[in-house]
Amino acid sequence: MNRIGKQTIVLKNLPKIIQTASVVGQKEQDGKLGGTFDYVIDDGRFGEKSWEKAESKMQKKAVEILLKKADKKNEEIDFIAGGDLLNQCMGTSFGLADFNIPFFGLYGACSTMAESLCIAAMTVDGGYSKNTIAVTSSHFCSSERQFRFPLEYGGQRTPTSQWTVTGSGAALVSDEDGQIAITHITPGKIVDMGIKDANNMGAAMAPAAIDTISTHFKDRNIDKDYYDLVVTGDLGKLGHAITKEQLAKEGLDFKNKYIDCGMEIFDLESQDVHAGGSGCGCCASVFAGHIYSLLKKGEINRVLITATGALMSTTSSFQGESIPGIAHAVAIERV
Amino acid sequence: MNRIGKQTIVLKNLPKIIQTASVVGQKEQDGKLGGTFDYVIDDGRFGEKSWEKAESKMQKKAVEILLKKADKKNEEIDFIAGGDLLNQCMGTSFGLADFNIPFFGLYGACSTMAESLCIAAMTVDGGYSKNTIAVTSSHFCSSERQFRFPLEYGGQRTPTSQWTVTGSGAALVSDEDGQIAITHITPGKIVDMGIKDANNMGAAMAPAAIDTISTHFKDRNIDKDYYDLVVTGDLGKLGHAITKEQLAKEGLDFKNKYIDCGMEIFDLESQDVHAGGSGCGCCASVFAGHIYSLLKKGEINRVLITATGALMSTTSSFQGESIPGIAHAVAIERV
Repeated sequence: MNRIGKQTIVLKNLPKIIQTASVVGQKEQDGKLGGTFDYVIDDGRFGEKSWEKAESKMQKKAVEILLKKADKKNEEIDFIAGGDLLNQCMGTSFGLADFNIPFFGLYGACSTMAESLCIAAMTVDGGYSKNTIAVTSSHFCSSERQFRFPLEYGGQRTPTSQWTVTGSGAALVSDEDGQIAITHITPGKIVDMGIKDANNMGAAMAPAAIDTISTHFKDRNIDKDYYDLVVTGDLGKLGHAITKEQLAKEGLDFKNKYIDCGMEIFDLESQDVHAGGSGCGCCASVFAGHIYSLLKKGEINRVLITATGALMSTTSSFQGESIPGIAHAVAIERV
Repeated sequence: MNRIGKQTIVLKNLPKIIQTASVVGQKEQDGKLGGTFDYVIDDGRFGEKSWEKAESKMQKKAVEILLKKADKKNEEIDFIAGGDLLNQCMGTSFGLADFNIPFFGLYGACSTMAESLCIAAMTVDGGYSKNTIAVTSSHFCSSERQFRFPLEYGGQRTPTSQWTVTGSGAALVSDEDGQIAITHITPGKIVDMGIKDANNMGAAMAPAAIDTISTHFKDRNIDKDYYDLVVTGDLGKLGHAITKEQLAKEGLDFKNKYIDCGMEIFDLESQDVHAGGSGCGCCASVFAGHIYSLLKKGEINRVLITATGALMSTTSSFQGESIPGIAHAVAIERV
């Protein structure tokens, strides 16, 4: 069995992430990671009639750039694994339809980029695929109107609320030679601590992040200093603080080596995003841009990407249900 | 590489489907396959306050029955792969939260049961899991109000419309010994032929079924008589006719050996379901009940399950978009 501990998979054949690509909006480009993305859309509509179509086009653009950067043709890609936050994952279905590549549609809310990397890693490691693309997207405008209020309403945002990242990130996982490998994955369980405030996703998702990260370290039997960076997807300021504190209590005090993509992408002081960025385009674009570049340059050698998702819908929230969370962890290392 | 042809995966370690379980509503029990299901809910609410909660409970029940029939504890299951049709797949998230089993959330519309079997097969075949559960559900009432009209409105249904099956089906894929193996999978591509009528899903999904089935036969280089049954998920009467005719033109005239779960589960003459059953609980419950039982008894030895999905949302339909389809094929054989 290619497993260790409770729920961690060992990828013995070391599938490589040979290339990444990212597309973001202007607000993301104006943030702390501006300049690390491949393409910036200057208008939220991206030349389309609706924000949903703009999101699809962003995801398509991310895959097009990825194929170009990797010098690959569509026919060389065996699978795409991807998803987004929209009802029935329409951002992905319409964004990827033209590529003519077998497709695994995933839904893990904001954890989807880590989930798609997990699936991509297993397809390549298992010899089922030579090249699999992992891709996700989110869009502030399509998310706001689906999950919260019409934008025109100008609703006041609570201090714990987060700002959905307009962005898409894609990664090419391959059996080719390379320096950056996915070595282990720890797919997560659904964790529900009874939090019901849809404007406090960070707190709702933190328990899942804590569970998965803590399990990952135990399963691999590694020290808290093993990774140069431990990264969560989009817990934001509050979720990051909860996760940091609780993990420290469990002997995993990462200090400044634990960062959250939602806090990295925006300047929380000046960009009016309250607790930070969110959305499955957040982790995707920050990983594909900033973090992959740190790995490439050798500035970091080992990183644990843990994207978290809040598995609620407006219907479940209206019906008074809590917000179950999930987190999947992906260990990426220079080999 | 464990691949043949264009897009078919060979599962060399022959993961086995060692047990299945199904839960359906009264209308399904009253249909042509009544008596083949494990559990029948006599009321659409299943003792819950909402249809969405009833759907979650059905999916939970299906997994509980599966674990009991297979004599397995939660801790023995490494993964669950599953999904449903509801926004943000809430049927699955809330249905599976209590099992405490690492979870891959999938969205493939009505193709999800085949997609989850694909993922489950790869996790077991690749040595990443000993036991993976594949599960999906759909519910007539939660689907109608989400995708079409409030039930109370009593809207007239078009002749090409289908009736969403109230049901859930689960299968346990394992590395244990067994007679019924998943031998090959052919994950499908998104196929969009420009059909925009959300009341004619069969026609929208048929091109994807034709593409995947035809590719599967070419990839495996097998004769049209290889399978005892070729099964589609929920194309209904119209989609079945289109698929049958087109495949016959391509040299794959299956005659009466090609059936559609949506036409099998209901009596199309007497049950007022127009073109037949649909929903990702359709293929799931028909496979878990009727078809698995035929395999178990040795009445059939080889079956190709091809579930099809219509990857639209109400938003995309309101915006005038077409309905992209997808189909994944799973070859299940007595070994």
